[in-house]
Amino acid sequence: MDYSKEALRLHKEWKGKIEVISRASVKNKDDLSTAYTPGVAAPCLEIQKDPKKSYELTRRRNMCLVATDGTAVLGLGDIGPEAAMPVMEGKCVLFKEFADVDAFPLCVKTKDVDEFVNTIYMISGSFGGVNLEDISAPRCFEIERKLKEKCDIPIFHDDQHGTAVITLAALTNALKIVNKEIDKIKVVFSGAGAAATAIAKLLMANGVKNVTMCDIAGVVYDGREECMDPVKAQMAKVTNLEGKRGSLIDVIEGADVFIGVSAPGVLTKDMVKMMNKDAIVFACANPIPEIFPEEAKEAGARIVASGRSDYPNQVNNVLAFPGIFRGTFDAMASDINDEMKIAAAKAIASLVSDEELNEDYIIPKAFDERVGKAVAKAVYEAAFATGVARAQKGDKF
Amino acid sequence: MDYSKEALRLHKEWKGKIEVISRASVKNKDDLSTAYTPGVAAPCLEIQKDPKKSYELTRRRNMCLVATDGTAVLGLGDIGPEAAMPVMEGKCVLFKEFADVDAFPLCVKTKDVDEFVNTIYMISGSFGGVNLEDISAPRCFEIERKLKEKCDIPIFHDDQHGTAVITLAALTNALKIVNKEIDKIKVVFSGAGAAATAIAKLLMANGVKNVTMCDIAGVVYDGREECMDPVKAQMAKVTNLEGKRGSLIDVIEGADVFIGVSAPGVLTKDMVKMMNKDAIVFACANPIPEIFPEEAKEAGARIVASGRSDYPNQVNNVLAFPGIFRGTFDAMASDINDEMKIAAAKAIASLVSDEELNEDYIIPKAFDERVGKAVAKAVYEAAFATGVARAQKGDKF
Repeated sequence: MDYSKEALRLHKEWKGKIEVISRASVKNKDDLSTAYTPGVAAPCLEIQKDPKKSYELTRRRNMCLVATDGTAVLGLGDIGPEAAMPVMEGKCVLFKEFADVDAFPLCVKTKDVDEFVNTIYMISGSFGGVNLEDISAPRCFEIERKLKEKCDIPIFHDDQHGTAVITLAALTNALKIVNKEIDKIKVVFSGAGAAATAIAKLLMANGVKNVTMCDIAGVVYDGREECMDPVKAQMAKVTNLEGKRGSLIDVIEGADVFIGVSAPGVLTKDMVKMMNKDAIVFACANPIPEIFPEEAKEAGARIVASGRSDYPNQVNNVLAFPGIFRGTFDAMASDINDEMKIAAAKAIASLVSDEELNEDYIIPKAFDERVGKAVAKAVYEAAFATGVARAQKGDKF
Repeated sequence: MDYSKEALRLHKEWKGKIEVISRASVKNKDDLSTAYTPGVAAPCLEIQKDPKKSYELTRRRNMCLVATDGTAVLGLGDIGPEAAMPVMEGKCVLFKEFADVDAFPLCVKTKDVDEFVNTIYMISGSFGGVNLEDISAPRCFEIERKLKEKCDIPIFHDDQHGTAVITLAALTNALKIVNKEIDKIKVVFSGAGAAATAIAKLLMANGVKNVTMCDIAGVVYDGREECMDPVKAQMAKVTNLEGKRGSLIDVIEGADVFIGVSAPGVLTKDMVKMMNKDAIVFACANPIPEIFPEEAKEAGARIVASGRSDYPNQVNNVLAFPGIFRGTFDAMASDINDEMKIAAAKAIASLVSDEELNEDYIIPKAFDERVGKAVAKAVYEAAFATGVARAQKGDKF
């Protein structure tokens, strides 16, 4: 199928992929007087007395803001806020279809970090949480950090954390097959942007000790000056502990795991051959991966995953973010913390049973209906376990 | 019915009065690849080339932002943004139920005019138009003016203009009954806030010459210093041309029309007796009007309207705003101008036939299904006639 052509046709037919409907039928005077004036004053006054009641008397508890500035849309780069909208609407569709989360898309007309943060903060009282999307690095780090400081609702940059969760899930199962322990493996990244950083951090929070990151300027090391930003400088202090320099080819030797969230074709067959026995290759650049799965296999990789749906082991965020928000909203959580992300990753990994687990099936399929529910449950429980839940235990939306 | 109690019960049951649903079913890989990546890149690139395509390839053309700062919510005053949400959701319900307009509510956490304006401007590219709601005067005037300057989409403060439209509609028909000409009547206002100002302006744009306004500080006159703001000062220059001073009782004599958008009980029976023969009294304070209809009648008023649904002649904005936005969105209009508002008022008035027209039936009922369609049609045509339509003539959403 020519997806571009079909997508254009369908987008004209859909007239928008989302719709705001009414849950209150208004057919007569009594309906009008309870959904609107004068009756509506009663819920207003309840919320004025106790703002937390907004989670009970309005849609807030189930409402996610999907926000972007349009600076890093898909692989298209900075296409601006209006042009980003089809992606944001699409994200809202996935939230609803996969986890019954209401999501509303907003594209903000600014590239200024503080202006973006202030805009989202100003309207944050109307939402249960914020999913940031397609914002370029390093601005996305600062935006997320500042929003987390200012807002009392969860802030989640899916390009970072959704990707990290599903990567950790896939890696967990891949390591089972090759029978390697997570604290012994050497992981090399191609990419040191938002996704790579979040994956590296989550892997390290989960036991990985030996990480080396490479980007367009080569190996990231402490003290490097080219192509750095504050977040990358932080990463340089906790990765590449031997202080190696050079480029990907200079650090790939002996790696157990390659994780690519970078650019097409940067991992060659020769490099794969330099990796350790039972090499694990996640080549997630989309649509053209760092190395095509068949090439990686030919060069000796035992397990290969990619972002593509036409190969086995698709690393797809849709396995993570809908269930994560479902569980977060059910718990009325004030944050989505590392424990909740790790719980989500473990829940995803656990859906592949030991009997089913093999080189071509390390993560559930995108349309596996068990995933959203399992992730939601795990995240819900982790929210309570870590004290960020504000709902009564057992109560869900 | 105890509307407060029933409204609270229903608000808990509804779990929010609006819901964001998906218009694109995602059940398999092909669905995912057209509604989302990789196919979604095609509509993104189309919009990047021509931002106007956002009206065709996303929901924008039918999407209204309902925005408030929570400073003048119903009769409750400044109850803050969170507590305003049930009213805003209610407004969105009415948009959808009465005119199939998608509307999304946002409560902005600021009382600073420029901060509010900037927030709305930043996200205006995601909407087809903005309905401002329950913002206190005089801030609402400045907010509306500045937003109109900055944004290329229509900005409509319903408390002003919706009220003005329906009042003009009611007055048009009332004058037919008493057989008075609009340019000869004397109109006295109780209230000089947002609604009163907008009504006075629209009546004057439609031929009324003799207007006097009163507020809590008494008659508004040019040069008054107490309780003034820039907009009221402007109104003082074009109303009360004899420069009278004092209070309502000092200017009500000989009035043909009283329009109250102020406070309970300010119009006494004695004052009604001072009015001209065939007096028209619109007592719209809600829920307790400036004078109760039966009292006004006893004192000699011939036609009485109020904001209440339990009396004849309910002046209810729901007759105006849904159809106004329907017509505006169908025309992809860049503004909602006076001509469009007057066209809406005339369309509403015209639905009461000469045979039906009587003292107790000067405006259609809130649930008259003809209203939304008639208003939409009139507004659509006026948008083309005044050059603000951006759609092809005949094309509708």
